Amino acid sequence: MGLLNETLLKIEPQDTDYRHRARNHLEQLTMPHWALGRLMDLAIDIAGITRSLTPAHEKRTVLVMAGDHGVASEGVSKYPKEVTVQMVKNFTAGGAAVNALAQQAKASIVIVDMGVDGDLDELVKNNQLVSCKIRRGTSSITSGPAMKKEEAIRSIEGGISAVLLHAADADIIGTGDMGIGNTTPSSAITACITESRPEDVTGRGTGIDDRVLKHKIGVVKKALSVNSPDKNNAIDVLSKVGGFEIGGIAGVILAAASLQKPVLVDGFISTAGALIAALLAPDAKDYMIAAHNSVEHGHMLAWKWLGKKPLLDLDLRLGEGTGAVLAMNLIEAAIRIMTEVSTFDEAEVSKA
Amino acid sequence: MGLLNETLLKIEPQDTDYRHRARNHLEQLTMPHWALGRLMDLAIDIAGITRSLTPAHEKRTVLVMAGDHGVASEGVSKYPKEVTVQMVKNFTAGGAAVNALAQQAKASIVIVDMGVDGDLDELVKNNQLVSCKIRRGTSSITSGPAMKKEEAIRSIEGGISAVLLHAADADIIGTGDMGIGNTTPSSAITACITESRPEDVTGRGTGIDDRVLKHKIGVVKKALSVNSPDKNNAIDVLSKVGGFEIGGIAGVILAAASLQKPVLVDGFISTAGALIAALLAPDAKDYMIAAHNSVEHGHMLAWKWLGKKPLLDLDLRLGEGTGAVLAMNLIEAAIRIMTEVSTFDEAEVSKA
Repeated sequence: MGLLNETLLKIEPQDTDYRHRARNHLEQLTMPHWALGRLMDLAIDIAGITRSLTPAHEKRTVLVMAGDHGVASEGVSKYPKEVTVQMVKNFTAGGAAVNALAQQAKASIVIVDMGVDGDLDELVKNNQLVSCKIRRGTSSITSGPAMKKEEAIRSIEGGISAVLLHAADADIIGTGDMGIGNTTPSSAITACITESRPEDVTGRGTGIDDRVLKHKIGVVKKALSVNSPDKNNAIDVLSKVGGFEIGGIAGVILAAASLQKPVLVDGFISTAGALIAALLAPDAKDYMIAAHNSVEHGHMLAWKWLGKKPLLDLDLRLGEGTGAVLAMNLIEAAIRIMTEVSTFDEAEVSKA
Repeated sequence: MGLLNETLLKIEPQDTDYRHRARNHLEQLTMPHWALGRLMDLAIDIAGITRSLTPAHEKRTVLVMAGDHGVASEGVSKYPKEVTVQMVKNFTAGGAAVNALAQQAKASIVIVDMGVDGDLDELVKNNQLVSCKIRRGTSSITSGPAMKKEEAIRSIEGGISAVLLHAADADIIGTGDMGIGNTTPSSAITACITESRPEDVTGRGTGIDDRVLKHKIGVVKKALSVNSPDKNNAIDVLSKVGGFEIGGIAGVILAAASLQKPVLVDGFISTAGALIAALLAPDAKDYMIAAHNSVEHGHMLAWKWLGKKPLLDLDLRLGEGTGAVLAMNLIEAAIRIMTEVSTFDEAEVSKA
């Protein structure tokens, strides 16, 4: 049995007993009932995920999955394809936004080459980059499938391995992405699985204008009509209109779920990976924490399908895991509420 | 000249030159244009406030202003008045929600007795509590003014002094409140200054039911009709329908503005203080950062009047400064983006 199937078999729902115990405890805290709202809902989720009323929160890892896309040659992005390689180097040099925000959140960063079109051997040799490279970029989804079915499975297993090897001791995991052109396959995946119109899930990505946006919507439509992905079959969707880093993100989420760790799902590319993960293992949704709502309007349609309400809404549209690391502090805050606040009895405060 | 007037004279608008310089720098960073949205807007504000492109962010202080309210005897809250004293003790013992969240944000807490109806001398003696006590609770706003005009000025000056003595070295300041019954005067202040109907700015506070809410709206209406506060005169509004801790919060904000420090304004009681501060010194608005949007629906009307969009929206309704400390991490994140992310040229990343 392969790593993917093994991982899927380990995924169970959140523990309802720990959820109840967390709720009962939170209701005794010295504050009006549920006065910290969504932080308290989050604390219940973390208790149900970790099977603990005193979960650890200090070790945090964001996995930034990088890959290139054949569809980038169709002029769907504002940036040339070379930027994927350049940004991977920027991540390893510590100069990107996710580096700065991970510093703030005290998170470590694992950068994974899932299929970047460039030679990154030097970085791998120096342990600055993890290689799960499937190949140098997907094929263009406008003329056939992005990848073979075996490659789709290998990309998911790459994400699983990355967690097992580099984040198995993390208390909180985050997803991130880099790949010029990757909002296009993410739109195709989201349109297919959530059964939405391409125009409702296709946005401006890096900042394209109206003319390019119209073209991009056409590209998404063409990819879907050329490939006819089966919305109930995750491997079919991923292989036909996906990307290597999107498969990797699905793997990261599945691994986190199998290890009973909370996983903060980042932007639009990450929710595309989350849709794939949720099709493979519906219970994996129990481990996903929606980090933020991005400017890409398809993002919210993905959150709705996943049954999630994002924590932050700050007009981000960068990816890289930036929203995921920003939200790590909120998980710590929720845990501290659960573990550090006195009850009415302990503090001798009068009840209502 | 008194401390209040001295402080008001020191308040100047944000520095537009630093705002421009921050914007120019942020536009060079290795990411699509403005891809971190509101974090980048926030970075510009912090540059304009601090007159620096490398502002410090490590020292953080939240000032929790506590006071009692004569109107609490009208049955507007779910909790008995004694809870104010009990919660002040809980703060000093480290057992309240704001303590847990301040730990998360690495913020120190200064608790200020602005007018609690209880004997807290022991805590003051032990340096656990700052005393700016005006008197033991305001008079009920349903039968006349909450306080004398001199008391209103002293309450604001108390807040200013608290900052000058206990937070003058802080890089980021936050406001907080404690006072059973204090959503009622906050509703009266907000209705008066924003020219809103009492029913549009009066909420459930600690969690009152429909019957009590109806009564509370009646109390706010009565307070306004009995006192006829002048919406253009901050001292008139504060003295007639305010509270000691609300005056204290206004003072904290004015002091932060005079010291050119960002001040995170917390919940509905804090925005009532912010409205008073903004009437006294419109430029003080330049220093206010809207921490969050609470469940109290009047909160958003106050933010609109202040011209602010809150950073967080997590269904909080606790006060204490909990939302303010939660948002401190976002200020750090914004500053790190401005100071740590490489430019396109530095990282040799291709531009669009």
